[in-house]
Amino acid sequence: MASPGAVLFDAYGTLFDVYSVGQAAERLFPGQGAALAVAWRDKQIEYTRLVTTSNDGAHYRPFSELTRAGLRYSARRLGLPMDDAAEQQLMDAYRTLSAFEESREVLQALKARGVVTGILSNGDPGMLDAAVRSAGLHGLLDHMLSVDGIRKYKTHPEAYQLGAVATGLPPAQIAFVSCNGWDALGATWYGFRTLWINRYQLPFEELGTQPERIGHSLRDVLAFF
Amino acid sequence: MASPGAVLFDAYGTLFDVYSVGQAAERLFPGQGAALAVAWRDKQIEYTRLVTTSNDGAHYRPFSELTRAGLRYSARRLGLPMDDAAEQQLMDAYRTLSAFEESREVLQALKARGVVTGILSNGDPGMLDAAVRSAGLHGLLDHMLSVDGIRKYKTHPEAYQLGAVATGLPPAQIAFVSCNGWDALGATWYGFRTLWINRYQLPFEELGTQPERIGHSLRDVLAFF
Repeated sequence: MASPGAVLFDAYGTLFDVYSVGQAAERLFPGQGAALAVAWRDKQIEYTRLVTTSNDGAHYRPFSELTRAGLRYSARRLGLPMDDAAEQQLMDAYRTLSAFEESREVLQALKARGVVTGILSNGDPGMLDAAVRSAGLHGLLDHMLSVDGIRKYKTHPEAYQLGAVATGLPPAQIAFVSCNGWDALGATWYGFRTLWINRYQLPFEELGTQPERIGHSLRDVLAFF
Repeated sequence: MASPGAVLFDAYGTLFDVYSVGQAAERLFPGQGAALAVAWRDKQIEYTRLVTTSNDGAHYRPFSELTRAGLRYSARRLGLPMDDAAEQQLMDAYRTLSAFEESREVLQALKARGVVTGILSNGDPGMLDAAVRSAGLHGLLDHMLSVDGIRKYKTHPEAYQLGAVATGLPPAQIAFVSCNGWDALGATWYGFRTLWINRYQLPFEELGTQPERIGHSLRDVLAFF
């Protein structure tokens, strides 16, 4: 099979470690940092789905707002006394998530091979830009694609379609990389060539569709070329 | 405000206790029954959202199939050695979930007052019918509404619209009762008069919308009349 004409990466959980906020959370709420990071992430994603499914986008809010809403819910759910300062501290930490250790070298290797690269993310542009700069990944990404313009989150097909439109390539010529199983599934359903990075040794979703490839580090994307 | 012209209940988690499968799970996997019941429920609901968001229903599968898929994922996720017989045993348990202790008396009280009652559920008709009969609730429900015909799960507005079409009432004259916060939220967005039964002392969703009422038992629905 020919190499893809472009590689698009999911951002949150794939290039950036969403659980790295657990350290800031642990300093604020000793013993509860990891639990808060996990609950926060789950709720944030749940909210993207609720607003996308309900009323055709009428309840859309940018990812940064859903991230804050997910944090508020999770802190209440866990009974953590989060004041405004603590909330803002955690939101600031989310804007400057750690990149995974191989994120930069993999993007550099792709650029060295002349591959078109990009991010296709639920994140709104301000949030994405802050994360990319903070992680030193700017200049390594040809496309920065956010669902914010269409007001529908992944796994809505219009979200993935942003990648085809931006690159001018048919979906079958675009590689899509995600550590999130549901995202790799949705992208496969849409028609991308998908690589699921199974960073946490999880089963893949049991919905009868498999990603084209499964890897354990972002480095595995290089095998497409 | 006038009393509603009909009351529609969510089924799974509201009339029926989805966590009652934890007992069967505990017998099969000692020490892991409750964890499996929680993971199973979460994944089942996640799958309803993924298939509804992706490709406009092209990946729809009936709730019973998503329930089985969620069970398979959750057992693998928790490292439980579930063979075909154990899987079928748990699926059978799911078809005959326990009703909450007040479900029957509340439906009887509504019928005694002449209120139109119904279920509006993600469940497919076969699954719903089995659950209603097993719990002895048949004859107390005027409408058995399943999303299966429209191939879109709640919180899609077309799912809630089934209630308006079946009763012939505008949404603002229909009371909708759910223990699931996301369902009470989606129903409120749709336009129903909503009662969220906060059975597990949870925070409500942090998306800027509140249900009309919050209760702690299904009995609280009687206050509408």
